[in-house]
Amino acid sequence: MYVDNSLSSAQTPAVDWGRKGWMTMMRQVWRLAKRPVGDIADGDLVFREEPIPELRDGQILVQVGYLSLDPTNRIWMSDMEQYMPPVGIGDPMRGGVVGRVVASRNPAFPEGALAAGLGEWASHIVTDGTGMSLFPELPGISIAAAFGTFGVVGPTAYFGLLDIGQPKPGETLVVGAAAGGVGQIVGQIGKIKGCKVIGIAGGPEKCRFVTQELGFDHAIDYKAQDVGAALDRLAPDGVDINFEQVGGPIMSAVISRMKLFGRIPLCGMISGYNATDAHEEPGRWTLILMRRLTIRGFIVTDFAPRFGESFQQLAQWMMEGKIKTRQDIRPGLEQANETVKLLYSGGNFGKLLVEVSKL
Amino acid sequence: MYVDNSLSSAQTPAVDWGRKGWMTMMRQVWRLAKRPVGDIADGDLVFREEPIPELRDGQILVQVGYLSLDPTNRIWMSDMEQYMPPVGIGDPMRGGVVGRVVASRNPAFPEGALAAGLGEWASHIVTDGTGMSLFPELPGISIAAAFGTFGVVGPTAYFGLLDIGQPKPGETLVVGAAAGGVGQIVGQIGKIKGCKVIGIAGGPEKCRFVTQELGFDHAIDYKAQDVGAALDRLAPDGVDINFEQVGGPIMSAVISRMKLFGRIPLCGMISGYNATDAHEEPGRWTLILMRRLTIRGFIVTDFAPRFGESFQQLAQWMMEGKIKTRQDIRPGLEQANETVKLLYSGGNFGKLLVEVSKL
Repeated sequence: MYVDNSLSSAQTPAVDWGRKGWMTMMRQVWRLAKRPVGDIADGDLVFREEPIPELRDGQILVQVGYLSLDPTNRIWMSDMEQYMPPVGIGDPMRGGVVGRVVASRNPAFPEGALAAGLGEWASHIVTDGTGMSLFPELPGISIAAAFGTFGVVGPTAYFGLLDIGQPKPGETLVVGAAAGGVGQIVGQIGKIKGCKVIGIAGGPEKCRFVTQELGFDHAIDYKAQDVGAALDRLAPDGVDINFEQVGGPIMSAVISRMKLFGRIPLCGMISGYNATDAHEEPGRWTLILMRRLTIRGFIVTDFAPRFGESFQQLAQWMMEGKIKTRQDIRPGLEQANETVKLLYSGGNFGKLLVEVSKL
Repeated sequence: MYVDNSLSSAQTPAVDWGRKGWMTMMRQVWRLAKRPVGDIADGDLVFREEPIPELRDGQILVQVGYLSLDPTNRIWMSDMEQYMPPVGIGDPMRGGVVGRVVASRNPAFPEGALAAGLGEWASHIVTDGTGMSLFPELPGISIAAAFGTFGVVGPTAYFGLLDIGQPKPGETLVVGAAAGGVGQIVGQIGKIKGCKVIGIAGGPEKCRFVTQELGFDHAIDYKAQDVGAALDRLAPDGVDINFEQVGGPIMSAVISRMKLFGRIPLCGMISGYNATDAHEEPGRWTLILMRRLTIRGFIVTDFAPRFGESFQQLAQWMMEGKIKTRQDIRPGLEQANETVKLLYSGGNFGKLLVEVSKL
């Protein structure tokens, strides 16, 4: 089958993606059939094979190489209050992608270029380029590593930590989900800025990774240790910056140990995304007041006008070997509905990507 | 009696405060006998008459004119986590004061000058001047108005709103305890900065005051109205800045109506200061994230190095008639333990001061 063929082999000679015979071309796509209640269940997302519409002026066809799976995907599936419109019922599931421009009627995206941005859980995407940009190929850095670093998580870590966290040498930085896509970068930037970095991760393998591979000062295994007690031991004077992506009792344990004038960049609450009740951790209003904490919620797109700054700096740090990133690459678009669940169970180890086709 | 005499008449010819006969001089002072449980009760504070110690080198004797009563007084009486050491059991109760230097062995505070700062609930204070500064007499502004504006509340309003709230023309500012010491100034600065200002206050008289006297755009009487419903009507697009001093359900009603990128300067939680349980309003972590709110706790002393800036600007606005302040002046140091309770019942109308002696 045509689409299967294009998915399975990047070595296949270039296909004639021109207008001729267009209607015979198909794509695979996940559509949201209904909003999950609690955990994502079979039938919430449906996998379809569909004809690819003919390109209109200004449009491009992108063959997706990697699909980024991110905690916020679960938010987009819901109709909870959120920072973009939720994915509509029946619409293609939204996701970050990088892929090859295989046909173009838009001079900004020439055929053969890599393009990345907000796309769909699909083998191919037809778009006018809104929300996409050309994606550079960096010497010595694989496309997966570059996309897994610069796609979403790099700017999230960069702006959240530097703009909101404002790390100073000698300060103590705590980062949860430390072996995840954002966490691993946050901790390494913290080290570059001279902080004592404590990562919180699930299991000894991830804890070893962030300390031995990434150079964090300490790691706390939340599956085996009492996070609060461990913090009391590792940071007896308290925490200056808590880069918060998780929420729940771990967040509460960290917040209650914040120092005066501490900062909490808040970019996720993954522990609650699958909750069916409206439970939230208790307010810590009095503590925020007495310790004069700053809490600021943010979404990476808030910093979109400055993405270039973060890409440039992160690329430099990567090429200098100061930042390493680990990707957890899972094959198969058709498994994406299962693969995404790893995020909510802590099953991924590194930035979670689906390899949709070889780039 | 000597002290009574000095308290009741500023017209009394200057007393010889020199060393001779010093031991015969007495002062009145409130001391903290035990920490209140819930509301302040009889016997928590005790009123004493005590000899005034002889001045040592570097010390001054201040005859207190006005004692500032502030919500935070209740915090200082407790041993809850707080931003300064709590008042020790048996120690004089801490409070903001302005008074006349009636004896000085410190050239920075000449006799006859006005001095203001953090002092004691007392008729006279012996101090080396730590935490005190000279207090200017402003043309056309009474000492009570100047002290009631510049003592604590002015910088609180100024830095909280301008530095943290960052008001922009056309934005919607909500201020609770609007007729109180801080609230009345916050709202007027908000108007100067071009905001739509909505005050929340208890009772029609205070609501009329903030709209008709101070020029707020709207007032919500929390004793008679549903605050949330009123906000839906008065600010259908939501709230950009919530200057928060109150906490409790009113805070929750405002926060749930914050706009994207809203700011919450948080300088008090008065509704909970007398609580005997550890209840706090629910956390709004998901909302903080999704709307990318900034919440920052602060205490006015955090901005102490910049107090001069606030005093200068506030004085200018007062002399231009752009800021008016109302004081609620209650006579009698010996009633201070009762007067302070007005803050927690909403019984004061304007900045609450005790007139300790005529200045």
